[in-house]
Amino acid sequence: MKVIADLCVIPMGIGVSVSREVAECERILAEAGLKTRLHAYGTNIEGEWDDVFGAIKRCHEAVHAMGVPRISSTIRVGTRTDRRQTMEDKVRSVETKLRPSGGSQNAE
Amino acid sequence: MKVIADLCVIPMGIGVSVSREVAECERILAEAGLKTRLHAYGTNIEGEWDDVFGAIKRCHEAVHAMGVPRISSTIRVGTRTDRRQTMEDKVRSVETKLRPSGGSQNAE
Amino acid sequence: MKVIADLCVIPMGIGVSVSREVAECERILAEAGLKTRLHAYGTNIEGEWDDVFGAIKRCHEAVHAMGVPRISSTIRVGTRTDRRQTMEDKVRSVETKLRPSGGSQNAE
Amino acid sequence: MKVIADLCVIPMGIGVSVSREVAECERILAEAGLKTRLHAYGTNIEGEWDDVFGAIKRCHEAVHAMGVPRISSTIRVGTRTDRRQTMEDKVRSVETKLRPSGGSQNAE
Repeated sequence: MKVIADLCVIPMGIGVSVSREVAECERILAEAGLKTRLHAYGTNIEGEWDDVFGAIKRCHEAVHAMGVPRISSTIRVGTRTDRRQTMEDKVRSVETKLRPSGGSQNAE
Repeated sequence: MKVIADLCVIPMGIGVSVSREVAECERILAEAGLKTRLHAYGTNIEGEWDDVFGAIKRCHEAVHAMGVPRISSTIRVGTRTDRRQTMEDKVRSVETKLRPSGGSQNAE
Repeated sequence: MKVIADLCVIPMGIGVSVSREVAECERILAEAGLKTRLHAYGTNIEGEWDDVFGAIKRCHEAVHAMGVPRISSTIRVGTRTDRRQTMEDKVRSVETKLRPSGGSQNAE
Repeated sequence: MKVIADLCVIPMGIGVSVSREVAECERILAEAGLKTRLHAYGTNIEGEWDDVFGAIKRCHEAVHAMGVPRISSTIRVGTRTDRRQTMEDKVRSVETKLRPSGGSQNAE
């Protein structure tokens, strides 16, 4: 089962800066061979269900191993059976409809 | 790794009513032996990481098998290494601080 | 516009315990006259859009005023135009379908 | 109070394709003068609290006006009092730590 997910990891009980921990998660997701795209409030991830969630588990383990006592993450996860869709497809489908000429047949 | 999670499954591409699909997910989580508590915008889940996410995967598979072509779920997931904490502990910790007599030592 | 929402406030840059801040948010939501229900990973809230989001803003302001330098909250918010629905309706609609006798006409 | 938010609007009770509704929300956020960045599972938004949440309310109103009977959105919202931070700052802060030469002083 293919998924497009979005992960936001919040380390707690350390200082206000969490970019070191977020960078570690980026490394883990990349090493898992997953397609990812970092944005300002999380990371888009595309891959097979087990690969994606296995990597998210390793993110939690790794961030705890860095000395973070508590983590609260939020994950959005989408699956569909009607057709294949990539992260780029989703963005393009919206952008097409934002152009003045509008009327694309694409579906997000 | 023990987790407390919160799952909200949104079936898409069917009608406005989604309680039949949500009930199916409740059954799957219960059959997995997980501790759960349904609320008005999701379900609290407590258990081992692999058990919780294995059951969430089966929820997506089962809802698709019911004829739903697209699903978008949101998951909050918390892990901590400093101490054990149950779902009831979390609620009690806040409720204790809401009482006039206040000054509990408990920590959420 | 009536909403059912779910709020999870994560104070960052303080210790692992955040129940004091969560309790303060509960007080603010109650003072706003909103219907709420605390659970293990957030709080269900029912009310008019402006009342709900006005109160959530005051939660952020109050938690910062308690000395918390950074907050990351997640909010689920649902609106519908087809019919009125309360938090209790949503839970009951799922629970009805979980009973062996099953076949309710209720819709979540 | 400045916020960085992330919005994912899920129209329910229509077909599987929701890009037309997501595009309408993009237009509303842009017309509100907010800084936004569309990604594959939502939209980053930067602005003042009232401007951001006023625009999100208009998104729900507009999507209902398009004929969508039910909407379930998820919003992440971050505020901080220790320093100013833009969406670009957050991404750059993580990306700096991903470079081999590593040791930036930036904080996410």
